[in-house]
Amino acid sequence: MSRSTPRNILFVMFDQLRFDYLSCAGHPFLETPHIDALAARGVRFSRAYVQSPICGASRMSFYTGRYVQSHGAAWNNYPLKAGEMTLGDHLRARGMDAVLIGKTHMKVDDAGLDRLGISRAGIIGARIAECGFDARVRDDGLWAEGADGPYDAKPSPYNAYLREKGYDGCNPWHDHANSAIRGDGGTGDVETGWLMRNARKPANIREEDSETPWLTEQAIAFLEERRAARTAVPWLCHLSYIKPHWPYIVPPPYHALYGVDDVVAAVRAEAERVDPNPVHAAFMQSHASRGFARDEVRNAVIPAYMGLIKQCDDQIGRLMSYLEDSGRLKDTIVVLTSDHGDYLGDHWLGEKDLFHDPSVKVPMVVYDPSPEADVTRGTTCDALVEAIDLAATFVDVAGGDVPGHILEGRSLRPFLHGEVPTDWRDFAVSEYDYSCTPMAEALGLAPGDARLFMVVDRRWKLIHAEGSLPPMLFDLENDPDELVDLGRDPGHSGMVRDMRDKLGNWARRESQRTTVSDAQILARRAGAGGRTGVLIGAYDEDDVTAQDLEPYTGRITRTMQKTSDER
Amino acid sequence: MSRSTPRNILFVMFDQLRFDYLSCAGHPFLETPHIDALAARGVRFSRAYVQSPICGASRMSFYTGRYVQSHGAAWNNYPLKAGEMTLGDHLRARGMDAVLIGKTHMKVDDAGLDRLGISRAGIIGARIAECGFDARVRDDGLWAEGADGPYDAKPSPYNAYLREKGYDGCNPWHDHANSAIRGDGGTGDVETGWLMRNARKPANIREEDSETPWLTEQAIAFLEERRAARTAVPWLCHLSYIKPHWPYIVPPPYHALYGVDDVVAAVRAEAERVDPNPVHAAFMQSHASRGFARDEVRNAVIPAYMGLIKQCDDQIGRLMSYLEDSGRLKDTIVVLTSDHGDYLGDHWLGEKDLFHDPSVKVPMVVYDPSPEADVTRGTTCDALVEAIDLAATFVDVAGGDVPGHILEGRSLRPFLHGEVPTDWRDFAVSEYDYSCTPMAEALGLAPGDARLFMVVDRRWKLIHAEGSLPPMLFDLENDPDELVDLGRDPGHSGMVRDMRDKLGNWARRESQRTTVSDAQILARRAGAGGRTGVLIGAYDEDDVTAQDLEPYTGRITRTMQKTSDER
Repeated sequence: MSRSTPRNILFVMFDQLRFDYLSCAGHPFLETPHIDALAARGVRFSRAYVQSPICGASRMSFYTGRYVQSHGAAWNNYPLKAGEMTLGDHLRARGMDAVLIGKTHMKVDDAGLDRLGISRAGIIGARIAECGFDARVRDDGLWAEGADGPYDAKPSPYNAYLREKGYDGCNPWHDHANSAIRGDGGTGDVETGWLMRNARKPANIREEDSETPWLTEQAIAFLEERRAARTAVPWLCHLSYIKPHWPYIVPPPYHALYGVDDVVAAVRAEAERVDPNPVHAAFMQSHASRGFARDEVRNAVIPAYMGLIKQCDDQIGRLMSYLEDSGRLKDTIVVLTSDHGDYLGDHWLGEKDLFHDPSVKVPMVVYDPSPEADVTRGTTCDALVEAIDLAATFVDVAGGDVPGHILEGRSLRPFLHGEVPTDWRDFAVSEYDYSCTPMAEALGLAPGDARLFMVVDRRWKLIHAEGSLPPMLFDLENDPDELVDLGRDPGHSGMVRDMRDKLGNWARRESQRTTVSDAQILARRAGAGGRTGVLIGAYDEDDVTAQDLEPYTGRITRTMQKTSDER
Repeated sequence: MSRSTPRNILFVMFDQLRFDYLSCAGHPFLETPHIDALAARGVRFSRAYVQSPICGASRMSFYTGRYVQSHGAAWNNYPLKAGEMTLGDHLRARGMDAVLIGKTHMKVDDAGLDRLGISRAGIIGARIAECGFDARVRDDGLWAEGADGPYDAKPSPYNAYLREKGYDGCNPWHDHANSAIRGDGGTGDVETGWLMRNARKPANIREEDSETPWLTEQAIAFLEERRAARTAVPWLCHLSYIKPHWPYIVPPPYHALYGVDDVVAAVRAEAERVDPNPVHAAFMQSHASRGFARDEVRNAVIPAYMGLIKQCDDQIGRLMSYLEDSGRLKDTIVVLTSDHGDYLGDHWLGEKDLFHDPSVKVPMVVYDPSPEADVTRGTTCDALVEAIDLAATFVDVAGGDVPGHILEGRSLRPFLHGEVPTDWRDFAVSEYDYSCTPMAEALGLAPGDARLFMVVDRRWKLIHAEGSLPPMLFDLENDPDELVDLGRDPGHSGMVRDMRDKLGNWARRESQRTTVSDAQILARRAGAGGRTGVLIGAYDEDDVTAQDLEPYTGRITRTMQKTSDER
């Protein structure tokens, strides 16, 4: 295949996909040949960390290219403040469209839009409301409903699609895509996918209509339109899948591909439950953690989770075929990642939230069509990569300098081209604000104190807890499974301190000086535009040049000291 | 005088007024009876620190109620980002007007306004462009001009006033208010105030037309209009004087009130020049510092500086008389402070920038007409107060809760009412970004590395320097004049570490989570509005309530697994 400089970006994100549930990442039973093939064409980053192990906060970092502490949308449905720059702002300024198909989990800052007088009816307001994207399809994939109303009050394009296809019920997302059917396969109540005991049952939907193929179809339709339009405008398409996120249930044939024998053992030790760090202890008590501590839950869920991933992989195959057939593989960067992982019972935890690798580390595969990338195809890179590096990479691809005073990540392109930067970061940071959770309540923490920071370098991982709680520390070299918490071990207090100093260095960064670039600062320092007549520290003519004084000399002017009355 | 609950706020700021150049603060020669009288009616905070010892950054903290690291406008003319909330936003939301008379040093984020589609012609854009204020008079008081054009390209209301009054020249601000007249007092070239050798000469202007009385007049005119309008809307009026900031020159009689005998000795020691901290050393080499190291400069400038302050004090007297006569003293909080100090040769430095008390500590006097404040009238409070506390105080006065997720300071009202909060801060922080300066160049620092942080508690003051430079440390108890830098003393490495840990605690704060309040978080934690059907971690019916499942049960629905073709 002939290759060329990339023009376009296909930015594929899965939701809650663990880094190690891919065959290219070493899973013993799950085969993901299409993702593996993408990795064989590109680079797989084996130490990619998200900025927060929860959907909303993590995604806002992907989309702004900034740490959670910098953008402030620290938990699900914390609005991203109007004015915070996004990928769309950066890319459009460089002549590239930014289109969304799928999920962002972005909550609009309505108060901010009102305060700034920005209407959502206009293009600027509409883009702010969609996290900077032109939203071709916005579907966050959680059409839950309860006594207080819907989880997501927006209209659901996916439910509209299902209804159009003849699926009945007021919430076909639930009744079909995320439920099985009871009993004899005929009419009857649904068996909800919200109950994990139903995970291995077949979802009540034609596979082609389930969420993952539907979103793939939307992406291909977008690509087809672009091809037909023959526009010269390059694009970033954010194809943001909803799966393998819960509800854990998948249609045939995927529901039956994996069984109990395919469930890998949980990475956990009894010792972890003996005098655990109080934060770990509190999270072990969550609904999800207590569930995933039970074998019946893991045995029900993990085969379904694997089936969901298998379906995702097949859809990647479909997408890659389309790209190849349409010629787009020659000029398109393809990125595949996830917003966070899933504990699945590891470390006696369910869900995500904390900072063990199954939660905070994600798959990250980048294919670059450039000839310069030929040297790295099929390789793995273990540099410390952060989710925010993607935004910087995309801006780099779009052309022009990466605005380091706004984007806090760094372009991965050098790695793709076989050039390892000598000044690459030596630690990565992730954050978690659990102020809204029952765990904060259980620990008696005020908002702002229920926060965690992870600092990881090539060997050590520190989890610093606010609220005067003790830290956790793992030696990734001697304890790669993170089973031994050294955070309270007196013998490691020096290491805790060293890692906390790294966190301090990070926390003092200048993250909000976004209106002045480094280049502008250096130009000012060099005196550009600075001869504006402010003469600080000059005692007499010896301290200044004649040119400095020129605007202030040679004028004939009257004595005007006396008051009007005295004159 | 009968007193009542305050409705209005008169927020008076001087520019570059040292904390100790007031008779109430102990100056041995300078008499400031009117400011002293205000202090006798209110509380004088003797340990009030600005958030940055430079105009622009300090003011943006006063006006946003946030640390410099939080708002990002870290140096003069770094635009305050559009979207950053200001005093005006907070006060107007509580029914109070916010009016500006004088200086803000605010630079507009034009790029941000453009990106957000906000026109400066509209009221929202106009307020954003004026740092949240309704700008009755905006005059930053630096109408300098040089080979690259004017320092400030805005129209000058003060120059317009002077022209209207008959002052000639294209820049009467310079030729009259900030210059003396040469020679015989008749016609001739001006002697520019930019040269400090001219500081003790009489400025070429009628005293009543000089900048300080002019701004007082504008404030009184505003108050008169309000009185005449009989409006029920309370107001904050930010009367922001330009003096005693340089150019150091003042009209008669103030130019002749003080002489060389009134110049207090510089607070400096020869030992400070022996192996100084490299940052201190670099700043000692600035134009201003080299100037103020010379006695002739101090002897020329300080009498003029004192004269400027004396004029400021007289104008405060005029203003207070007006407030008393008009009845406004009964219902108006009056605050008097400064944006930073002036080294005047102390520590071998000129200007401001670093963190010795003459630079970073400011006067702060607060008069509260409430009967509850009677217990504290005429007292001094030595609590660690920060400039950002004023915004919180003002919002507290305007009514309603202080939004602690946006405003990082705390209301001073308890102190005014004799109630000392038991949980008051135990350290204060100030910051300085000198990336634009020749000092950064001399030290070979990249932007972002040319930054300093001060942490001060009741005894110790640490100045942490980025860029791998050593810290400075002062023992304020045993060395109140800050003449002995212990930052590199091995015997104090533990104290350096302790203070740096405090800085780390501060730097990890959650400063950008401004779209969600603590109260909203606590409500969510308690489950408010949270029954939206997301059932995490439920295995079977035992893990959920029937109500939880209700939206998902009882529906008759068809089996829809087969493909369209198969049906």
